[in-house]
Amino acid sequence: MTAPETLRFEDHRLILIDQTKLPGELAELVCTTVRQTHDAIQRLVVRGAPAIGIAAAYGVCLAASDSAASESSDDSPADERSRYIDAIDYLATSRPTAVNLFWALDRMRHVVESTPVEKLNDALVAEAKRIHDEDREMCHAIGRNGAPLLSEIDTVLTHCNAGGLATSTWGTALAPIYHLHQTGNAPKVIADETRPLLQGGRLTAWELSQAGVDVTVITDSMSGSLMRQGVIQAVIVGADRITARGDVANKIGTYPVAVLARHHGIPFYVAAPTNTFDLELDSGDDIPIEQRGRDEVAAPHGVGIVPDAANVLNPAFDVTPAELVTAIITQRGVIHQPTAEAIARHFNS
Amino acid sequence: MTAPETLRFEDHRLILIDQTKLPGELAELVCTTVRQTHDAIQRLVVRGAPAIGIAAAYGVCLAASDSAASESSDDSPADERSRYIDAIDYLATSRPTAVNLFWALDRMRHVVESTPVEKLNDALVAEAKRIHDEDREMCHAIGRNGAPLLSEIDTVLTHCNAGGLATSTWGTALAPIYHLHQTGNAPKVIADETRPLLQGGRLTAWELSQAGVDVTVITDSMSGSLMRQGVIQAVIVGADRITARGDVANKIGTYPVAVLARHHGIPFYVAAPTNTFDLELDSGDDIPIEQRGRDEVAAPHGVGIVPDAANVLNPAFDVTPAELVTAIITQRGVIHQPTAEAIARHFNS
Repeated sequence: MTAPETLRFEDHRLILIDQTKLPGELAELVCTTVRQTHDAIQRLVVRGAPAIGIAAAYGVCLAASDSAASESSDDSPADERSRYIDAIDYLATSRPTAVNLFWALDRMRHVVESTPVEKLNDALVAEAKRIHDEDREMCHAIGRNGAPLLSEIDTVLTHCNAGGLATSTWGTALAPIYHLHQTGNAPKVIADETRPLLQGGRLTAWELSQAGVDVTVITDSMSGSLMRQGVIQAVIVGADRITARGDVANKIGTYPVAVLARHHGIPFYVAAPTNTFDLELDSGDDIPIEQRGRDEVAAPHGVGIVPDAANVLNPAFDVTPAELVTAIITQRGVIHQPTAEAIARHFNS
Repeated sequence: MTAPETLRFEDHRLILIDQTKLPGELAELVCTTVRQTHDAIQRLVVRGAPAIGIAAAYGVCLAASDSAASESSDDSPADERSRYIDAIDYLATSRPTAVNLFWALDRMRHVVESTPVEKLNDALVAEAKRIHDEDREMCHAIGRNGAPLLSEIDTVLTHCNAGGLATSTWGTALAPIYHLHQTGNAPKVIADETRPLLQGGRLTAWELSQAGVDVTVITDSMSGSLMRQGVIQAVIVGADRITARGDVANKIGTYPVAVLARHHGIPFYVAAPTNTFDLELDSGDDIPIEQRGRDEVAAPHGVGIVPDAANVLNPAFDVTPAELVTAIITQRGVIHQPTAEAIARHFNS
């Protein structure tokens, strides 16, 4: 099985699989400027909290070529630093909810602030590559740590795409499935389509079927009755932000799946790297929730399905309280029945 | 406010609003044959359990003109009766779940079997019109009976379309809202879009906004967090079949909404005429669930969103057990906390 190469950095260019075109077309988008990178994150060409962080880190590196293009090679050291800081501040405005974005940009900011100007360009590329490499290792570790939770499961539900396309390789929620698939023991996967942007139907179904994992797509409204019938025996999802007490912000539609899992006595697992935790926030109710535009709901693929006279809401994320989470799987291990104490122990171990 | 005229019978032709074209286009489809009527029901040109029953009843009447067209005016009385019976049997195969379809066709069958052949044509049209008239009265009575349950509610969620377009006029689930709207006291309505066929986003939003009711469309995955935030304070839906113990078959996605309502302590109301009850069935698990084609999920509006290598499930309905139903509203009154005993009392009162 080959995991998709979500993004790579070659010849000082950031090359992304254009996820807005999947599964119909496997196209690449090449970014050579900070602005293009910002736009690609905003338009969800690249999406998934870890992948956004990596893309943004490489995006910072592109500020150098931006300046080369603008013939300002006689910039003072202060100017060169401020160009990178401006790029970091600008990229931080591309998506508001995923904390990995800010985490990756903070690492890049630290390099800008602590490196002699003449070494800055190489140091930033090296730091971005380090973030990228760590992400690969993180995916494999989450796969190993989560696999025992799914090894006896016949069919698992996942929501949205927290797979290879959301990271550099195996993903987070899908990593235990890929891990088990190596030895032919992967559970069957039900991917709910994840309206409005259909990341489940388009992306999860695409990457799992490419890898040879048995995957079935349903609408978001079908998982409840499949749980009631006993078809779905576990749920695993990713996360965009997790608070100190274990509340989980993730793609809209995650919370109802967690409620349904609890109602049916089915485990609800969250898989995420440790940098998804925002330990400065206690309650998930304090996580800012991105509100996106009307047309994603009202006119998918350009086809108007909602009359103009009707209002539309389009929150991109929801918050699942820790009480509904059976376990959180990170690259360090598994936090069973997450609480503030259990999470603090996980970080201090 | 003018309710949509979902269907009418004029000059021995059945004229339907083509609901597959809403909200983009308000077009009519004219049926002059039994086969066209069967096709219109199957393709969801006309949908909603009560409207299907009325359309099928008129469809039986069209068997007469079918025979006129086939120049078989020298048919024996037995042939003429069997032509109507064939039409009834054929129309019964158009949709498997809605019990109103079989109920309306049984009434037509009784007319065929109990009427002298020379009066048969007129008697069948009269019976179909009677079914149609009774449906209008039913809608208004459900509106009156359900209104007190919603009169103190700021915002109510409905799923799919159990409105005017699903019946001859006000609908079932929307009838209490239209009733309250007459005096300017309608609650605001949140319509979830109801994938795969989007009857909520397309039809409920269309008819309510036409009528001047404040309506907001969300994806099916958003109602959970709106309940958690206190925005949604009640749920009202229609039904395709209700068993003797009060289990409710309705559009796929109804059951998860009922679970979410229970989790948040929000009332979950079902509005349906008494002919929606199938008193011969006890458990909802015995209701046959229509499985529809792949493309409704995988290629909405012709746009392929699911890779060919992935499987797809598409059950059209789910079953909500009586335990999750706060009350059932019929044209006769309200059944609070439905049980077999309460339902039997309702029918015997």
